[in-house]
Parts: sequence; structure tokens; C-alpha cells
Amino acid sequence: MTGEGKRVNAEELTQFSARVLEKVDVPPEDAMITARMLVASDLRGVDSHGVAHLKPFYVDWIRQGKVNPKPKVEIFNQTPTTAVVDGGQGLGFVAGYQAMRRAIGMAEKEGSGFVSARNSFHFGAAAYYAMMALEHDMIGVAMTVGGRLMVAPGSSKATAGLNPLAVAIPAGNKPPFVLDMSTSVIAFGKVEIALRKGLSLPEGWVVDGQGGSVTDPTQVISKIKNSDGGILPLGGLPVTGGYKGFALSVLIDILCGILSGKSAGTPATHFFGAIRIDGFLPVASFKKEMGRMIDSFGSLPTLPGVKKVCVAGEYEDEVVRDRRTNGIPLDDKVIQSLKELSQELGVTYSL
Amino acid sequence: MTGEGKRVNAEELTQFSARVLEKVDVPPEDAMITARMLVASDLRGVDSHGVAHLKPFYVDWIRQGKVNPKPKVEIFNQTPTTAVVDGGQGLGFVAGYQAMRRAIGMAEKEGSGFVSARNSFHFGAAAYYAMMALEHDMIGVAMTVGGRLMVAPGSSKATAGLNPLAVAIPAGNKPPFVLDMSTSVIAFGKVEIALRKGLSLPEGWVVDGQGGSVTDPTQVISKIKNSDGGILPLGGLPVTGGYKGFALSVLIDILCGILSGKSAGTPATHFFGAIRIDGFLPVASFKKEMGRMIDSFGSLPTLPGVKKVCVAGEYEDEVVRDRRTNGIPLDDKVIQSLKELSQELGVTYSL
Repeated sequence: MTGEGKRVNAEELTQFSARVLEKVDVPPEDAMITARMLVASDLRGVDSHGVAHLKPFYVDWIRQGKVNPKPKVEIFNQTPTTAVVDGGQGLGFVAGYQAMRRAIGMAEKEGSGFVSARNSFHFGAAAYYAMMALEHDMIGVAMTVGGRLMVAPGSSKATAGLNPLAVAIPAGNKPPFVLDMSTSVIAFGKVEIALRKGLSLPEGWVVDGQGGSVTDPTQVISKIKNSDGGILPLGGLPVTGGYKGFALSVLIDILCGILSGKSAGTPATHFFGAIRIDGFLPVASFKKEMGRMIDSFGSLPTLPGVKKVCVAGEYEDEVVRDRRTNGIPLDDKVIQSLKELSQELGVTYSL
Repeated sequence: MTGEGKRVNAEELTQFSARVLEKVDVPPEDAMITARMLVASDLRGVDSHGVAHLKPFYVDWIRQGKVNPKPKVEIFNQTPTTAVVDGGQGLGFVAGYQAMRRAIGMAEKEGSGFVSARNSFHFGAAAYYAMMALEHDMIGVAMTVGGRLMVAPGSSKATAGLNPLAVAIPAGNKPPFVLDMSTSVIAFGKVEIALRKGLSLPEGWVVDGQGGSVTDPTQVISKIKNSDGGILPLGGLPVTGGYKGFALSVLIDILCGILSGKSAGTPATHFFGAIRIDGFLPVASFKKEMGRMIDSFGSLPTLPGVKKVCVAGEYEDEVVRDRRTNGIPLDDKVIQSLKELSQELGVTYSL
């Protein structure tokens, strides 16, 4: 996921993306929130959720009238630590940012806070919201309903969501622990990469409606559309624990879809949480022990060819350091889409 | 896991287990709490965590002076929704029960509540604690540090915990959603079953220190003791997402071990949580939609030989109904251990 291509400065890319969004009527503050999150994803090496989506997803959705650029985001608080956010059919970043801010605000007062959000849209990478908790010395949680491309164990048809889960935990002078995973064997982005590179899929990623292995990436979408199999849940087949990945997917369906007042698995419903670390022990002690744990995993004996055992978030932190210093590599197709936005909306492109 | 053997009445088994515990100085209330949890596990078909452990774990640990039968359990509240419980080196069931009660109590007042617990012992099946939230119309969460039998991706040595996670969510007139999973491909109980039955392990459960497959169950423990591989994380090898199972294991290490004020992965540290459903929407609406979701998965087209797609908890609920009516099947070895307790402690055995 490190990507190769022209290296672009992160701050300039953020400014450009924000100006583009303003041109389609997104208020400046919301435009900047959205731009920062897109570029943060690129900085972490998650190119599938960054500015590559700016034109085909967010700008085009607004121009098509599908997304309201100036939504009325409403927050309904029911208890001191729980709330529901209605995103007003606006950008997912805007609803998500406000929802996570509210979760953090409740945690500041009461120790923890949880928000379920509805009437939103694709909110980018879940990690960003969870990571908003880090500077407050809190544990952050974010999840969302993903594409219904997963086959439930025992079923022949993809109807479960790939449903990503993110958790971020500060670790002092170490990179924060950041888990950001789909509840399927792989996120759909890995199928797209295989398609782009003309590679076969490994066994154990996708099955057809008879449970047979699908390794040709060009067949995945057509098969899923024809109710002929789908992506396996984390754990793969039932014998290796696939029912666990499915259960995690359903759990996220419930927290995002049902708790927000819609149906289980409603697209673009989300769930956010924040818990104060000093609600349990002094933050300094906590971070010291986080560092010790990360070091302890990092000094484990490794298999041939493996440099060291990394804890979730360590690798991405290295990518951030590189890309912040040396720029974000954008492939030609993405640069082309940004140039089109530049021309269509009259925003200077000087990347 | 349905088990075959003499069928024993659940209530009689509970009364017997409680009397046994009282004989080794466990106060009556704590003895009954523990007995109920053990039998609840047997009722759900989780025979590996039920009365089979009564003698070799809990009673013998107390008789060996390892576990304090009359611990002073202390609760330290830091915020309105977070607390740390010190189990005083007593039975895990006692610490766990009090911790989950406190989480529920905080949720009643504030909407949510979280407790990390230390200086406890093996607390049985995580599901029981999560399910304590159900009658309060809350979402319950429970997790604990399990045996360090998992190989982190890239490592040759088992140092990560099997760390179970349980989440319980009420579903009205449907069986509650109850997820209770280790973060490894399989819980260790499945290796024990293969040992007992003289079966080979499937590929994808256990690897040696070179990453090769281990299918002989007699080799698993000796290899792990010799730092030569271990049980794979949920997801298996890295190519099928094993780093996700590892990340979930580490997350549980942090919430149980570090948040409770000990080290990451300290044995018998736990984490509990409760969130009020009416903190988001009316309970009746929530349960109605839970039922619709469960029906919708249950009516999916299935693979040949599969009756229907089950949501987590549905199968166990059927087992409970059967065992409550027809008794819990106990195998000869377990009955023998209960008879020994009966003689050694002078508790009438009339099962």
C-alpha cells in the first residue's frame, strides 16, 4: 500500500482538496475537516480511502445532488454518555467528525461517551475518528457499515457487511496502537489492487455460491451481483473460525444501523466511542506500560525474512513519517482526477 | 459440543456445586454466584468451562492456598462511568460478577459503564458476564486474558493471548445475540477435544516455529513449551488476515492488563462494559429490528447440508432449551471428579 508515483506535499494537497470542496458549496470549516481526513488517510498509506475518492465519490455525489453539501447535523442526547447523530444526508466526514467530537466531549465529563450516527455517507477511513481520541488521552473507537460483499458462513450469497472496526490507543513516545480492519478476510481494496495489477487472488479470500475458491479478480463483482458467493469473513471457512468474523460484522451492523434508529446494516451508519484512560489509572503509567508492551512484541524471535513483530499502527506510523517528509505518492489516475477537478471548478492546481 | 453422557438436572448440579464451594470456605452468596456461572456454561453447551473445572481448577486452587476463598474485593471509581476492581486474589467469578454489576450500575445512572479488573483468577466463560446486561436492556461486554498460546504474525514463538471477547445484545422474543470468541483460530478446548478423541487437527489451526502446519494434537503443548510455534490468530496466516486476530488479542491485553493497573496480558485480568440501549432509541424498537435482522439472516439461501444461517447465540440458545428440559450430559470423567468432591468434602451426591 506504499504506492509509487509523483510525490505531493501533504499540506498543499489538503489546501487544494478543501478549496475544491468549497467550490461545490461545502462550508469552509467542513471542507477543511474533510480534506484533512482524506489526506490523513493518504499519509497513513491507506491510498484506497484518500484523495483518490475526492472526485468520484464526494465531489461527484454533491454535484449529482446525492449528498447535501450544507447539511443540518442534529445531535440527540439521551443520557450523559450516549447520543444519536443525524447527519442530514451530508458528507460522512462532517457527521463523523461531529459525532466523534461529541463522544469525546461526553467522555471528558463522564469518563466515556458513545454516539451512533445515521443519514450520513461514506466517511473515509475509520482510523481517523478513533485517532481523534489520542490527543485527549482517551481510547477511541469508530466503526461503520461497509459494502455487503461478505458471505455469512453456510450461505451462498453475499449479504453481510465488510464493516470496518477501528480502535486507537495512545502509547506515549511510541506510535499509538491503531487497529483499523474490515471484519472480512480482506477489504475490497485488495481485490481492486489485484485487478489493477492483473494478479490472481490467493485462496481463502473469495468463494463462489458452491463454496469453491475464486481466484480471478475479474469474476468477483459479477459473481456477487449474481448472488454467487462473496468475500469470506475474517477466519475464512467455518473450520478456521469464519463464524467469528461474521459475528463481528453483525455486531457492527447492530451498533451502527439499529442503535442509530435505522435497520441493521444500513449503509453509512456509524458508531463512535471514547473512554478516558485516567478513568482507570494515571495516563503516564498507562503510556509507559504501552511502550514496554510494544518493545516486548518487537523483540520476539521472528520467522525467516521478517524484520520484527509489529503491533497494529507501527507500520502505518513509519509510512506517515516518510510521507510527511517526502510527500504522498499519487498514481497517474489520481493526479488526472485532481487535474480534472482543478479545471472543472477553477481551483489552481499547483501540486 | 453437545456432549453425550449421563444427563443431570441443572438446578441440582448448581446446588451441589455451591455446597462444595461452601465446604472450602467460600461464603454462601459467592458459592452460589460461582455455581450458577459454571452450570450456565454447561447449559449453553460450553462444557469446557463448566463444572468439569470445579475440582481441578477452583476447589483444588482454594485447597492449595492459591485462591483466597474470602477475598476483599475493592472497587476504585475514578469517573462516573469507569472503575477498577481489585479481586483480592479470590475466585474470578466473584471479582467478575461484582465488576460487571458495577458496570451495569454505572450504565443505569449515566448511560454506560466500564470496569477493568485485576488480582482475579480464571473467571469461566466470558459470555455469562456479558449476558448479565441483557435483563437490564443493555449491551454487555466482557473480555479476559487467556493462555499465551498464540503466535503473533511473523513470530516463531507463542506469546500472544488467546484472549476471549464476549458481547451480548437483547433481541426481544428471539434468542439474544451472544458473541463469545477467542481471538485465535480456535480456543484451546478444541485441541483438547482432538486429543481426547484421537483426531488430527485441521490445517490452519497450529503452526510450528518454521511456520509449518502441525496437525498432531499430542505435539501442540510440547512445541509451545519449546518456543516452537503455537495456535494461529483468528485469520490464520498474514495473507488471510492473521494480523487482525493478533491486533484484537493485543487490544484485549491492553484493556484487561494495562487499564487495570498491571502489565499487558497479565493472566486473569478482565474488562467489562455495559451500554444502555434506551440511551439511543426506545428498547421496543431496538428489539423489533433485532428480530427482523435475525430472521433476515435465517432466511438466506444456504450451501448444501446447511439448515440455516445462524446469528451468534442462536445455536447455544437451542442447547440451553434442551439441557434445561432434559438435563446436562456429563461425561464419566466429570462425574468421577464430582463424586470425589462429594466424598472428600462430605457433600451428598445425588445427581
